[in-house]
Amino acid sequence: MGFLSFLTPKDKKFFPLFEKAAENLLKTSDALIVLTTTNSVEERAQRIREIEHLEHAGDNITHLIYNELGKNFITPFDREDIHDLASAIDDIIDFIHGSAKRIDLYKIDEMGTAIPALARCIRDGAVELNVALKNLNGMKDIDAVKEACVKMNSLENEADDIFNKGIAELFEKEKDAIKVIKYKEVLSALETATDKCEDAANVIHTIIVKQS
Amino acid sequence: MGFLSFLTPKDKKFFPLFEKAAENLLKTSDALIVLTTTNSVEERAQRIREIEHLEHAGDNITHLIYNELGKNFITPFDREDIHDLASAIDDIIDFIHGSAKRIDLYKIDEMGTAIPALARCIRDGAVELNVALKNLNGMKDIDAVKEACVKMNSLENEADDIFNKGIAELFEKEKDAIKVIKYKEVLSALETATDKCEDAANVIHTIIVKQS
Amino acid sequence: MGFLSFLTPKDKKFFPLFEKAAENLLKTSDALIVLTTTNSVEERAQRIREIEHLEHAGDNITHLIYNELGKNFITPFDREDIHDLASAIDDIIDFIHGSAKRIDLYKIDEMGTAIPALARCIRDGAVELNVALKNLNGMKDIDAVKEACVKMNSLENEADDIFNKGIAELFEKEKDAIKVIKYKEVLSALETATDKCEDAANVIHTIIVKQS
Repeated sequence: MGFLSFLTPKDKKFFPLFEKAAENLLKTSDALIVLTTTNSVEERAQRIREIEHLEHAGDNITHLIYNELGKNFITPFDREDIHDLASAIDDIIDFIHGSAKRIDLYKIDEMGTAIPALARCIRDGAVELNVALKNLNGMKDIDAVKEACVKMNSLENEADDIFNKGIAELFEKEKDAIKVIKYKEVLSALETATDKCEDAANVIHTIIVKQS
Repeated sequence: MGFLSFLTPKDKKFFPLFEKAAENLLKTSDALIVLTTTNSVEERAQRIREIEHLEHAGDNITHLIYNELGKNFITPFDREDIHDLASAIDDIIDFIHGSAKRIDLYKIDEMGTAIPALARCIRDGAVELNVALKNLNGMKDIDAVKEACVKMNSLENEADDIFNKGIAELFEKEKDAIKVIKYKEVLSALETATDKCEDAANVIHTIIVKQS
Repeated sequence: MGFLSFLTPKDKKFFPLFEKAAENLLKTSDALIVLTTTNSVEERAQRIREIEHLEHAGDNITHLIYNELGKNFITPFDREDIHDLASAIDDIIDFIHGSAKRIDLYKIDEMGTAIPALARCIRDGAVELNVALKNLNGMKDIDAVKEACVKMNSLENEADDIFNKGIAELFEKEKDAIKVIKYKEVLSALETATDKCEDAANVIHTIIVKQS
């Protein structure tokens, strides 16, 4: 017991669910990497469908966490952290899904450099989130959790820079305003996914601070 | 007493206020339907003014709920649900108001198909929200509450599709980029109103799960 | 002791930190005023760098508040108010920073009337926030706190009008769609800063209602 025992009430349901959510996020971000780097039209269509399915799977995991939260007696503030963490992971996937949908609907075929670069930030963030959650479970290695949170924060800063420079470049080079709008929408959804990843890191950080 | 007794403390103030808020939302969404389907310039101007007034009325109801929350002793987590529900209903009206204001300021006269279709999703959501709240009061009919929440969730999915297809169509057919931006802004405010309706459904669902 | 004693636990750390955050916000909004009204390219570049530094300083103050929150035993709901207030002040600065960065990256040199008018709303809001926090500390003058909150709310309404009219004017006068997008992005970040200022006022109002 000890440390994060509040996160492992006797039913031991939360941690496995969070690990499931984080693995699902990792798969979604892997599909996004392929979607934004492949030249194959078929591959692209397949990855968009895959992300669609993974988003539904993620929704189910999130609802399971919320339902457990409703059933289990936990102190209010801790409940909130669990809720916020589940909701942040759900949001990351939603924004990945949103950007995939836009790539599809707006028929974006040239990805440029900013779109795959942001996809890479999201995937790296998903990797760190998996590391953080694995080491948080049972308080295996708190320093590893902290390190992963710091990395998720830097990835958000990096994504912010890629986004800003991407938009500025778009304004300079692209003269077709409708294309500017389309790319801006995709970049913006991707950048928001990294914001949500930072939100997840901040919730994890809050949990650690409270327990130390 | 029983079930949702926490929602009806002895002053019995919350439920009447929530019902008032939901009725006010219904009126606002009815005005939006007229605004987005009429061909009359006068009717349109009148509905915009009506939505403006209803938004102020909604603000007052929201503040009454917040003030009651400040005065009443309720357990922290429940407080939060009440706060979140009031705030979600307030947000729906704010985004209806925001879209009406944009229609007015950007002088949008041709509504196309996506704008009235989204207005219909919002109104149907408002109807379901009224059903949910009426059946939540005193635990009249929990299945009816659940069903209404499910419908509000599907309406958000439907709105999402209408929005995405509307934007994709806009990009294909409209060559005037400034018109694209204007329509996108209106569609986006309308779509966000249905997101907020889903938020309201999720809070109601949380309340039910906790009590069952 | 008395009134807001919960905000001044024995370590007396929260109020000094909030006053520091509010002063930092005031400096940031002053720099924004200069940035949006000067004709000097050097002055502009200098103010953008200044805002960048002030945003980092603000981040550090916010993290100090969050860390104190993690360490101190306070009842859950009050914790949340403290968290929300810190987060709202942090958000105001983030959106000032975001608008400064856009002005820089999008190479916006003509500010028009709406940009400096919104900067003025933000600065006036920052002044009122400082007044509110000073009078909240130790319950010096609750009427002064309320008055400052009312003013922050009106400033948000004023900003909303300036934003809406600014956008409508932009759509009418500016025929270059890419310029429309750029200005819209800057105006939108500035307007969101005033929304966050209203959020801060609402948290302060909640604190007052609860204690009265």
